[in-house]
This record gives sequence, structure tokens and C-alpha cells, in this order.
Amino acid sequence: MAKPIYVLSGPNLNLLGQREPDIYGSSTLDDIHKRMAGRHEGVTLKTRQTNHEGELVDWIQESNREGAALILNAGAYTHTSVAVHDALRACDVPIIEVHLSNPAAREEFRQVNFVSPAANATIAGIGGYGYELALDAALHLIASGER
Amino acid sequence: MAKPIYVLSGPNLNLLGQREPDIYGSSTLDDIHKRMAGRHEGVTLKTRQTNHEGELVDWIQESNREGAALILNAGAYTHTSVAVHDALRACDVPIIEVHLSNPAAREEFRQVNFVSPAANATIAGIGGYGYELALDAALHLIASGER
Amino acid sequence: MAKPIYVLSGPNLNLLGQREPDIYGSSTLDDIHKRMAGRHEGVTLKTRQTNHEGELVDWIQESNREGAALILNAGAYTHTSVAVHDALRACDVPIIEVHLSNPAAREEFRQVNFVSPAANATIAGIGGYGYELALDAALHLIASGER
Amino acid sequence: MAKPIYVLSGPNLNLLGQREPDIYGSSTLDDIHKRMAGRHEGVTLKTRQTNHEGELVDWIQESNREGAALILNAGAYTHTSVAVHDALRACDVPIIEVHLSNPAAREEFRQVNFVSPAANATIAGIGGYGYELALDAALHLIASGER
Amino acid sequence: MAKPIYVLSGPNLNLLGQREPDIYGSSTLDDIHKRMAGRHEGVTLKTRQTNHEGELVDWIQESNREGAALILNAGAYTHTSVAVHDALRACDVPIIEVHLSNPAAREEFRQVNFVSPAANATIAGIGGYGYELALDAALHLIASGER
Amino acid sequence: MAKPIYVLSGPNLNLLGQREPDIYGSSTLDDIHKRMAGRHEGVTLKTRQTNHEGELVDWIQESNREGAALILNAGAYTHTSVAVHDALRACDVPIIEVHLSNPAAREEFRQVNFVSPAANATIAGIGGYGYELALDAALHLIASGER
Amino acid sequence: MAKPIYVLSGPNLNLLGQREPDIYGSSTLDDIHKRMAGRHEGVTLKTRQTNHEGELVDWIQESNREGAALILNAGAYTHTSVAVHDALRACDVPIIEVHLSNPAAREEFRQVNFVSPAANATIAGIGGYGYELALDAALHLIASGER
Amino acid sequence: MAKPIYVLSGPNLNLLGQREPDIYGSSTLDDIHKRMAGRHEGVTLKTRQTNHEGELVDWIQESNREGAALILNAGAYTHTSVAVHDALRACDVPIIEVHLSNPAAREEFRQVNFVSPAANATIAGIGGYGYELALDAALHLIASGER
Amino acid sequence: MAKPIYVLSGPNLNLLGQREPDIYGSSTLDDIHKRMAGRHEGVTLKTRQTNHEGELVDWIQESNREGAALILNAGAYTHTSVAVHDALRACDVPIIEVHLSNPAAREEFRQVNFVSPAANATIAGIGGYGYELALDAALHLIASGER
Amino acid sequence: MAKPIYVLSGPNLNLLGQREPDIYGSSTLDDIHKRMAGRHEGVTLKTRQTNHEGELVDWIQESNREGAALILNAGAYTHTSVAVHDALRACDVPIIEVHLSNPAAREEFRQVNFVSPAANATIAGIGGYGYELALDAALHLIASGER
Amino acid sequence: MAKPIYVLSGPNLNLLGQREPDIYGSSTLDDIHKRMAGRHEGVTLKTRQTNHEGELVDWIQESNREGAALILNAGAYTHTSVAVHDALRACDVPIIEVHLSNPAAREEFRQVNFVSPAANATIAGIGGYGYELALDAALHLIASGER
Amino acid sequence: MAKPIYVLSGPNLNLLGQREPDIYGSSTLDDIHKRMAGRHEGVTLKTRQTNHEGELVDWIQESNREGAALILNAGAYTHTSVAVHDALRACDVPIIEVHLSNPAAREEFRQVNFVSPAANATIAGIGGYGYELALDAALHLIASGER
Repeated sequence: MAKPIYVLSGPNLNLLGQREPDIYGSSTLDDIHKRMAGRHEGVTLKTRQTNHEGELVDWIQESNREGAALILNAGAYTHTSVAVHDALRACDVPIIEVHLSNPAAREEFRQVNFVSPAANATIAGIGGYGYELALDAALHLIASGER
Repeated sequence: MAKPIYVLSGPNLNLLGQREPDIYGSSTLDDIHKRMAGRHEGVTLKTRQTNHEGELVDWIQESNREGAALILNAGAYTHTSVAVHDALRACDVPIIEVHLSNPAAREEFRQVNFVSPAANATIAGIGGYGYELALDAALHLIASGER
Repeated sequence: MAKPIYVLSGPNLNLLGQREPDIYGSSTLDDIHKRMAGRHEGVTLKTRQTNHEGELVDWIQESNREGAALILNAGAYTHTSVAVHDALRACDVPIIEVHLSNPAAREEFRQVNFVSPAANATIAGIGGYGYELALDAALHLIASGER
Repeated sequence: MAKPIYVLSGPNLNLLGQREPDIYGSSTLDDIHKRMAGRHEGVTLKTRQTNHEGELVDWIQESNREGAALILNAGAYTHTSVAVHDALRACDVPIIEVHLSNPAAREEFRQVNFVSPAANATIAGIGGYGYELALDAALHLIASGER
Repeated sequence: MAKPIYVLSGPNLNLLGQREPDIYGSSTLDDIHKRMAGRHEGVTLKTRQTNHEGELVDWIQESNREGAALILNAGAYTHTSVAVHDALRACDVPIIEVHLSNPAAREEFRQVNFVSPAANATIAGIGGYGYELALDAALHLIASGER
Repeated sequence: MAKPIYVLSGPNLNLLGQREPDIYGSSTLDDIHKRMAGRHEGVTLKTRQTNHEGELVDWIQESNREGAALILNAGAYTHTSVAVHDALRACDVPIIEVHLSNPAAREEFRQVNFVSPAANATIAGIGGYGYELALDAALHLIASGER
Repeated sequence: MAKPIYVLSGPNLNLLGQREPDIYGSSTLDDIHKRMAGRHEGVTLKTRQTNHEGELVDWIQESNREGAALILNAGAYTHTSVAVHDALRACDVPIIEVHLSNPAAREEFRQVNFVSPAANATIAGIGGYGYELALDAALHLIASGER
Repeated sequence: MAKPIYVLSGPNLNLLGQREPDIYGSSTLDDIHKRMAGRHEGVTLKTRQTNHEGELVDWIQESNREGAALILNAGAYTHTSVAVHDALRACDVPIIEVHLSNPAAREEFRQVNFVSPAANATIAGIGGYGYELALDAALHLIASGER
Repeated sequence: MAKPIYVLSGPNLNLLGQREPDIYGSSTLDDIHKRMAGRHEGVTLKTRQTNHEGELVDWIQESNREGAALILNAGAYTHTSVAVHDALRACDVPIIEVHLSNPAAREEFRQVNFVSPAANATIAGIGGYGYELALDAALHLIASGER
Repeated sequence: MAKPIYVLSGPNLNLLGQREPDIYGSSTLDDIHKRMAGRHEGVTLKTRQTNHEGELVDWIQESNREGAALILNAGAYTHTSVAVHDALRACDVPIIEVHLSNPAAREEFRQVNFVSPAANATIAGIGGYGYELALDAALHLIASGER
Repeated sequence: MAKPIYVLSGPNLNLLGQREPDIYGSSTLDDIHKRMAGRHEGVTLKTRQTNHEGELVDWIQESNREGAALILNAGAYTHTSVAVHDALRACDVPIIEVHLSNPAAREEFRQVNFVSPAANATIAGIGGYGYELALDAALHLIASGER
Repeated sequence: MAKPIYVLSGPNLNLLGQREPDIYGSSTLDDIHKRMAGRHEGVTLKTRQTNHEGELVDWIQESNREGAALILNAGAYTHTSVAVHDALRACDVPIIEVHLSNPAAREEFRQVNFVSPAANATIAGIGGYGYELALDAALHLIASGER
């Protein structure tokens, strides 16, 4: 596959593995990216994290120009960013939304979601392993030509 | 693994594959179950479908008594059934919620969800292949001992 | 007409004629069915009543497989059942919703309606005679090939 | 029957038959009135259309003074007019609400209805044929002495 | 006093005295106007009733140009008319809102009120006698130069 | 008339006349009571003010036992007190609600009103003169035997 | 007393005593039924549990035909079932609602209640002992002839 | 039992038995207290009624310092008082909420309840007899050591 | 251009220029119409104002039959008229909504807008000059053949 | 400074220090008042606590007549009392609202606040030390002449 | 005119012309800027686009310091950014809001608008030509000295 | 104290002192920082301002790694940023929220607050002096070891 799969993570996900390991596990975002990289041969990943909404929009646009698919954990911007929503709406590549925990079991304001309605698929609540399943899903969607 | 994994599907999912194949694909629920059964050796599945809320509650209780995990597509009861919610809350086995399509992109009344807050994980929007990923997720959660 | 017209009634409609005759009239559901049967020659009816949501879903699916049209008074499930809604959405036959009384003049929670948006037509507030008009409407829709 | 049955139609229904014939059919309001007039012998109809809320109120009052029943398609005023509501509440004659299409399947603001709670009966979603059934319903209600 | 006091009544108030006399009393709107006319010497009244929102707006504008004060029972338009609200906002003369019954004890949709926020005063729930008190209030406000 | 008319005022109305005279006028509550007392011969008034909700409830009960009518400006308790509402509901004497200013033109939280639905009549927005009209209204209602 | 008192329990109450004994106690539903049976001489009980909404509706209808009173813990259907509500509305026998725990201290969606408005009485938050008090209440209501 | 059980009643409950005897029965609050006092030997009661929210808060605090349990009918303060709620939250003694009628069948604003979430148990809709069952419940909770 | 451009203004816009000139400027509606007429050669305008909702509906229908485009300031009916909305929906000519002031900075009830969703374009907040820009926009849309 | 600073505390704050010392600390309200008194020389304090809403209103009025500033912890009345709000609105002295804990992290009903919009400043979440900072703030506002 | 007019565009507007040309036309943002630049002699433009909310705030502040007016299409930040709102509120230069399409005809979440209430004028739904009209409006507002 | 205290200010606070000095005073943010720096010996401050949400998140994370406490005025992001909320939730250092004015007395959309529920304390409405009290509060919380 010539084009890479983008794996983008949003605000505060750089803290992963350092804090509350009993909840989020001791894996860092880097560990997760490594396990993804080792899961399928011949698949290139572009993995990045940012706390900036605008940067996330920039990268989503880039993933659509230069990538084969987008795996996105938009963190808090999931619940507030129409800009991210619009960037996703403008994509032709398949998009898989990932969440480490289960947002449905959290605060009221996390029940608003601007990513899901613009994504093909959602995988949530399985920790870092969810990123790996998201990669399988991305390959499945690429293979079946769906968006 | 001595205990089977339950795969329960709710109302109208018996129509799968017969209607709107351009949206839902031409796979029947039976086809999906077969692909799941062939995915991992040594894993037993109990696969059932019902249009009855009470029967779904009965089976969820059974899956907790006799199963190792529960994969549940509650269909329309996802959005209306507190009884299903309570049955799930009473389970010790890991629970993976599956949806063929992406409910976030559908009607307002499908934004209410009584399954997600009582499930470990959610996989949505990848058609029948989502059931296969749900099986991987179930095995992962069983292996890591999480609920 | 080779195929029958289904006439399905939901919860508590088996009590019709026994209670509050000054409001609902002294006709039983059976009386209504008989008047319908005698209204048009060469039309076969399948008339049933149930208090079970799942059974109503089963029968709606059956009416679509084996019937020419569906006349439905879903009773209380009108206001709570997404499962009934989904079953109706999956039908190709014309669907006429009937209510004996006028739900618009009743409690707030009866203002939610999951049947109307999935039905072709609604007839309400004319007591048992509404079932007869519904039959006329069903024949009209069958004749005009509408759904 | 000495007194006529009033058939009143509200705003924009004068456009019927001229626009979107694939949706509303090619019948004009006049065609519908003619089919109604030919349906029952010995029944006089008063048929009118207006775009003015106040005129509709005037005519509803007149139908109660001089008519035997009222068949009303209040069009857009269905969703906004408390004045129409109050005029209907003040009527002793039976009132049948008609809609060509099914308002339940349309915009949110059409889910507010000031006519239904003040009407005896509602017939919706069967196109112009619904006016004919409304006439049958009116005669039935007159015969049974109901309001 | 050179200028007359306008007494305007809205939709369905022409039915007063003819219907439900046990609730609204047997006085017609004309009777009320006569009692008002006889209450104070040297005061001219302009009394009118209409079922048309636009006519009410026309008359409110006229009352501001040619009258000394406005006594208004806008009937159902109280609850729906922003046009009436804007016409009242544009007035310099004092405005007294009147209601025969007590709207606070009626339906939810009558709790919306576009007249009160644009009026100086409100008198409600005292039947036709409220119009007489409204006249006293109008004279009081004219005398004190308030708007 | 053997029994007195109660005139009860709620919290912060003891500040009347001392503060913001440009808005509320320079009349104190005592001035208003004196003008009321001088308005009709042979009418006894019981005039009181309190900042305490419970005391207002006590006095409303007393006014029903020992008074001929109740004129009530419940001040802030108008918007929060179900206890006042229940006390008013238990009264047989006519009740006239008074407000100096027009609550409809004030904050959102003043749009909730627990007095109006339990009162016969409301007079608002005419300053202290409204108490005088309320007295006229009370005498009118006593004379006509209404509650 | 010739007729039995019905004691009906809804979804998931069959799990009582087996799960979370620190919260719900170690009594099973059967234990509770036995203590009820031993509380009053000459009183016959019909005790049943179901996870099916339709079956609950069937039994409520039966309790009205063949029973002297109904004690009902509708479990999750308390919060979602208009069908149960309508069945209760159609009853002439006294109805006592029971809950083991205090729903007021639980999730938002449990604050909707379709049983209470159709029941005579509610007893909640006293565990299994609440069923015993409900029996006392039922006998009290039967004795006083109330519904 | 050394410590008394407090039985506190809120606003307007002093009117019990004097008004609407067909609804509330002819028993006064005093009659109810007497029947409670005669129900169990060796149980001391402290029975009081007040129309004042602050006094109710004072007494709730006292019941916690000096009582063994609290039976509370907070009347209208049930629906408005966070102060009562906080006082209850600070109690260690068991609390049983009582209502004579069934609040679930009454106005919308009575559906807000600040007592229930801070009480152990609720008994409603059985008239004065509910106080007697509340006493049984209080003794049961004291005996079982629950709060 | 053979067909005229309609310029329709709704309720209270006849007061323009006479009132609050510091806010709305000293231009009358007639002044605005004159400046529009002088802006482009060879363009005919039909300019009208009414306080009547029904007349506005009549004229919108006429503008579609006989005009090339519609410039509409519906005034207060912007916020309340579904009839105007439906008339606009039925138009093939381009529609430009105009407002003198900025409704977004005004009352809550002006945030509801039934014109915008049925118009091509909106121009607001630039006083009478907005009508001139609306004319430019109309010509632009006619030229580009858009609706 | 000739005039004292008022320090008023509302319902249940008399329990401070006696209950849940791990949350609220072991300081009583009296301890806090003593630390305030010792913080600045030449400053007189009037410190009081009440469970009665009406008494709080009385004291707020007094603080405005006789005090230099008001420090207010209105406890539960913060969330329900429009009477307290109105009393504060009528004050010329600076007002500092204090809360021991952080209401933003508590129940939904504590998100309604009638004190903040009428106060100059708010200090919350720093336990008893917040009262001391409030005193500093009061002196600062007195010195700068702000209200 | 010494100072330039700022033309700022927000997130995803850099994609203009590249995507969905049938909806948004084939003009790029650069094409639009060029047409604006050629529209009036002697007018300097500063044209920029960003996906970053903070950068938009920076530039709005700059436009107020160094520009003569601001033309702003805030894209998705229109619907979510209080920071943009506050920056606009702090401006003295006239502000014209532009949208290519008509937000009123789009999703519910686009009905929230933080730009309009802080702007002088809004022009929407005329594609890139709206930017040109916005420039005319800006010059008009500068000439008339309005903000 | 080895570690500095972070003082972070959000969007538009760089305009402080330059605009509306009658409201916000003539102090700049720099002036406030200087007064803070001079208030306590031996305390180091890190003071920064940004208009970028992402930068605020970066700095909050840094303050937790390298600071002793965080004083935060998040400006407009207070009301919209879940990303800021999550960053604060991940902090171990004490957090004091500051606002110059009183947000409770401002627009509806400022009543949503994502900072308060994640902060220890809030100080609002005392202008720049509030930053100084926030510093005192920070030192108090550090000393008492609270978070």
C-alpha cells in the first residue's frame, strides 16, 4: 500500500501511561503506536499527537490528501469541535474513531459528539487495543472501497 | 475455553441480507455468525436472534450464568430498554456492543442509548465485519480479565 | 386479491367493549373485525391482537411477507417502540395507522409517536368506524400502487 | 340534510395540482371538491380556500352557525394558530382534520398541532382521497350524534 | 379629553355572551362596551373586534396615532403574535392588557405572552368587569403621564 | 360588611418608597394602605407585610378563616413558593394578585408564577394604584359571589 | 376473602438474593413471597415474576379480572412501559407500587415513572419488607373500598 | 427505646380534616398522630406541624440529635426546599417520607422532589394510614440498623 | 428584463422613518424603494407593504408567478409564519431575505426564523442600504440561474 | 471604620465542624468568625447564622442600613431564594458571596444561583479560609468605593 | 483610505474550490480575494485564512488596531468560539459576517452563532459573490461612521 | 519554595487596561502580575497569556510538571473548552480559578463553566485584586497540602 494510514490523537493523550495507570493502563501512546506498527506487514503509519484544535484540522486535511485512511482519537475536541467535524466531512478516505474508555459512561457533556457522525466507524472502551482493532477496520474499509 | 461466547441480536436483525443489500450488504446474520465461528479455533459461540425484549433479557442473564463473554447488537432495544440495561448491569462477563451502521449519523431518538453505559466496549459502523472485531475484543477482554 | 390485508392491534385492545362503553362504545374488537370483513367482497383479512411488543414485530414482518397491506393500531407501543418503527420501515406494503380515540387530546407522553413517521396514512378519533375507513384507504393505496 | 358540510382549506392549498405533481398528484383542490360532491347524494358542500388566518377563523365560526360538520385542512396554520384552535373549541358541529401528506414524517415545527386537540378525528397521508374519507367520517359522526 | 381611548378585542371575542354563559357570563362584548361608555363622563371610546391579526396591527398603529390610550384583549394572538408585539412596542400611548379569564390557569401554550412585555399593565380574571377597571387604569396612566 | 379584607405583602415590600423612587414612586406601603382605606366606606382592611414565607402561609390561612377576600402581593415568593400556592388553593374567599411593576418585562425566573394559577384575578404594572383597583375587584367578586 | 391478591414482579427481579447481597440483602424473591404469605391468615397470594413486558400486561389484566388487589414491582418497565400504564388504568382493583431501593436516588432515566400515576399507593426504599407493608396497604384499601 | 421518633409535617397540613374531606378524609393530623401513638407499645413520638421552612430545618436537625428516626411529610417544601434536603443529608437517623395523596398523579411542579433522594424510604397515596405504615417502617429500619 | 423584481415588506415596516430615527435612520420605506429603483437601469420593481400574514402569502405566490426574483423583509412574520415559509418553499424564483437591524442581537423569540431556511440568501444589519445590496444579489442570482 | 461588616450564614451552617470533619474540617462557624475578627484591627463584625429564609432577608436589609459591607454564605437558599436575591439587589453596600466547598462540582440543582448575580464578588472552594479572603475583599471594595 | 480592510476566513475554507464544486463553485478563496481586490480602487485588503481559533483571535485584534473594517467568515468557529465573540466585542471597526452557503438550512448545531451578535451585518447564501457585497457594505459602514 | 506558581491568562486578556477602563480599570495584565510578584517574598511566578486553546493546554500540563500551583483565568475558554477541563483534571497541583468580573451577571452562554468543576477554588468579581487573593489562596492550599 503506497499511502500511509494516519493515526492522530488529540489533547492530553500525550499524558497516557504517566497518569492513573490503574485506569488507562501503563502503556504510553508511543507503546500503542509501536504495537500497531508491528501488527501488519507493508502498512505505513503516520502517528501524531497535538493539544491544538487547529493543528488537528491541518492534519486531518493532510491525511485526506496524502493518506489511505484516518484513525482518530480527537480526545476532548470530539465533544466541542465543529472545525474537526467539517474537516472530516471533507475527507474521502475512510475514518475510524477510537476512544480508550467508554464515553457513554462519563459526563453529560461527553455525550455530544462531533466526530461520530462524520466517521465511518467507532471503536471505544477497549483501551489501547482499540487502536489495533481500528487498524484492522481501516484495512478492511480500504479493501472494500468504502467511505 | 470451556464456556461459550454469546452473540445476541435484537429486533429486525433477522431481516439482514434480505433487504437494502446496497446499504447493509448481502450477508445474512447467519453468514456473519459463520465467519465469526471460523475466525478463532477453540472458541464456542452461542448465536441467537429475537424480536422480543423479554427474551433478550432472559438470554443476557443466561450469558452471564453460562457464558464467557457477551457480544450484543440490541437493535432498536438499544434505544428504549431499561430492562436490557439492568440485565447488563448485573453481568460479570465482558460485554461488547455492536452496530452494523453508525447510529450517530441517524435519527435523534437513536442518540439515546441504554446499552453503551453498561457495556465495556462499542464497535459500530463496519457492517458485519464489526461482529468479527467484537469477537477479537471479547477474547482480548477475557484474556486481560477485565469487566 | 390473492394476499390478505393484515389488521393488527396492540396492548390492552382486547379489553375493548368491556370497559368504559360510554367512551369507547360497546363494540368489541371482534365486532369491529366483523364489520370490516363484511365491507368489501373478495378481500381477506388477517386479524390479531397481542399485548407483546416482540409478537407485534413478528407479525409486522409477516404482514410484509404474506400480506397486501397492514392496518395497525399499535396501542401503547405507538409511543414507545422503536422496534415496531424499524419493522414498519422495512415494509413494502402500504401501512395505515388507526386509533380509536384522538391521541392529540391526551397525555404529553402520547405525543411521541413511532408509528406515524413510518406509516403511509393515519386515521384517528372516529372509534371502530376508523378501522373501516382504514380498510378503504388500504384498498385505495393498493390500487394506486403507493407505499 | 338541510345544513351543508363545510370543507375549508388553508394557506398555499390553492397551489395544489400545479406544483410537484409527483408528490401531491395532479389533482387540484377543485378536482378534490368535485369528487367529494359526487360521493354522496343529498349532501351539500361549502368549499373554500384562503391564505388568511383571520378569514379561516371567520369561516370556522360560520360553519358552526350554518353547517352540519366541518372538514378542515388548515395547512400551515395547523402548526401556529391558537386563534383557529379557539374557534374550533367553540364549535358544536363535528370536526374532521385532513392532511394530504403525513405531517409526522416532516419538519420538527410541523409536530406542533393546534387543530388535532380540538378536532374529533384526523385523516392524514392519503392525498386527495383523504378528503373523501373525511366526508364519510363526517356523515358517520353526524349520524351518531357525536362531537 | 380630545382623543378617544381605543378598546380592541381579538379573535373569537365576538362569540362572547353567546356561548358557555356559565363560564363567561351572559354579557356580550357590546354589553361590556356599553358599561365602559357609561362609567366616566367626557371620555370617548373606539371599540372594535376582529379575527384578523393584520387588522389588529393596523388598529394598534391607529390607536397610537389617534388615541389617548389602548385597552387590548388580543385573545389568541396574545400567545402567538410577534407582529402585535412589535406594533405595541412602537406605541407612545399607555397600553392596558385585559383578559376575561385567568390565562395562568389554562393550557401550557397560553403561558407564552407577547402582549404583556409590551404593555404597561395587565388586568385578568375578573370577567367583563376587568374592562371597566382597565378604563380606570388607562385614565390613571394618562393623568400621571406614564408610558 | 362584617369581615375585613386582607391585604398581604411579601418580602422586601417594606422597602417601598425608600428606594428607587423614580421607578417605584415615593409612596410607602403605608401610604398605599391609607389610600385603600379611604376608598370605600364600611370596608375594613387588615394590612400586613412580612419577609417570611411561613408567616405568609399562616396569614393566608387566617384570611380564609376570618376575612371576606384576600389581596396578595407575594413579592419574590410569587415565583418560588408552592407552600403559598397550596395555602391559596385551600381558600374559599376571592383572591386578587397584585404587582406594582410588570413581571412579564423582567427576568426569566420571574416568569414562573405560583400565585396566578390559584388566584381569581391579577392586576399588575400600575404601581400603588393597582392595590386600589384590586380593592374594587375584591368588592366586585364578593358582591357577585365568585371564587 | 375469596379472591387472591396478585404480587407481580418485573424484569431482573428473579436475580434477587443472588447478586450484590450487601445492597439488596440475601433474601430471594421467593423468601419475600413466603414472608408475605405468612403475614396474614386467610389471604391468598398469586406471586409471579417475568422479564417480558407483554406478559406483565397479560397478568395485570388477569389480576383485575380474578384478583382483589395488585402489588406490583414493575422493575425497569416502571420507567418505559406505557402498555403497563394503560393496563393499570383499566383496573378497578387497588394497586400498590413497590420498589426495593429508592429510585429517587438513582439515574435520571429512572425519574420517569409510568406506574405511579396509575397506582393508588407507592412504597419504596425498605427492601423486601416493603412488600409486606404493601400487603398491609392492599388489605387496608380493600377494607376501605378505595381505588 | 429511649429516644423518640419524630413525626414532622409541613405547610398547610394543619388544615387536614377540615377541608375537602371527600378527598383527604375527615381525620385531622391530630387523629393520625393518636392512631400512630396507639400502634406500638413503648414507642414515644414527637409530633409537630409548621408552615415555616426554617422551623422544619431546625426540627430536622433536632430529630437527628435527639431522635431515633424521622417520619417527614414536608408538604410543599418537598418540591422547593434545598435547605430541607441538606438538613436531611446531614442526618444519621433513618428517614421515612410520607405523603397522604399520590404526588405522581398531580401537577408537573410536584414531580421535583428534594426529600426522596435524601430519605431511606417513601410511602405515598394511602392517606393517614400511610403514617402508620411509616412508623412500622421506621421501627424496621431502626431494628435493622440501616440508614 | 421582462419580469419585475418583487420587494415585499411585512408588519410595522410602514412606520419606518417616523419612529426612532436614531436607530432606524430617517429614511422611510418609500425612500428605500426609490433608491433601489434608481440603482440599476432596466429593472422594474414591485414594492409593497402589509401588516397581514395572509396578504404576504398571496403576494409571495404572485411574485413567483409574475416576478423574476423576490426580496423579502417579512418583519415579525419571519419568526412566526409557517404559511410564509410554505409559500417560499413553493417558489422557483430566487429569494433574498433582508433585515434592517441584526436579529441575532435581539430577543430570544427572534432567533426562530421561518424565512431563512427557505431563502437563497440573507442580508441583515446594514439598514436601508441592505435592500440595495439585496437587489444586487437578486440580479446576481438571476444572472447565474440559481435558486 | 464606624460601621460593622455583616457576616451572615444560612441554613445548616450551624452544623459546621460537628459533621464530616474530613470534608469540611474541624473548624466550627464560631472558629471561623474568631479568625476573621483577629485578621484586621479596627474592623467590627456582626456574625449570625439562621435556618430561616425570612430572617436572612431581614438581616440583609439590616446590613444595608447599618453595615459597611456584607459577607454572605446563603447555603441552600443560594439556589432557591428569589427573596434573598431581591434583598441583595436593594443593597448599596458591597456584597461578597462565600462558599466553603465548590458548588460547581456538586448536584445539578446547585448550579442555579440567585446570590451571584446580585453580588459583587464570589469566593468559593477554600473552606473557612475563604471567609478570611472575603473580609480582605470587602475591605478592598469599601476602600475603592465600589458596589 | 489609509487603513486596509481585513478579510479573514476560518477553518477548512482553504479547501474552497477543490471540493464539491457543484455546491461551492469552482472559485478558490484566492479567486474570491482577487475579485474583491479589483472591485474598488484605492482600497487595500489584508486577506488571510487559518484553521486555528487562537490565530483568528490574534488577527481580529490586529484588524481592530490596524484596519478600517473586518470582513469575517469564521467557518466552524462561528458556532463554537466565545473567544472569537469576545475579540469581536472588543472591536471599534465595523464587522461584516459572511457565509458562502445558508447556515439556516443546515444542521441544528449550526444554528448557534457567536459571530452574528457581535457583528454589524451578516451576508449569507450568495457564494463568493457575498464577499464582494460584504466589501460594499464595509465601505458603506465606514463612510457612515457606524459601528 | 523551589517551584514557581503559574499564572495563566486566556484569550483577549492581553487587551486589559487598554479598553473600557471604566469597567475593567486602567491596570494592564502586566500591572497585575507586578502587584502579585510584590505581595509575598520568596515566591516565584510564571506569568503568561495566550489566545490559543492548545497553548493553554500545553501550559497547564507544564504547570503540573514544573509548578507548585496554578492560578488560571481561562477567559472565553472557561465556557467552551473540554480540553482545558481534561488538562486540569490531570493536575495534582492546587488550581485557583480567577475572573475579573462576575460571570454570573453576564450572558447565558457564560453560565457554562468547564474550569470550576476541575478547580479547587474560584475567586470572581473583584477585578485585578482577585489575582492577589488567588495568590494568597494558592499559598494557603499549598501549605495545607490540599488538592
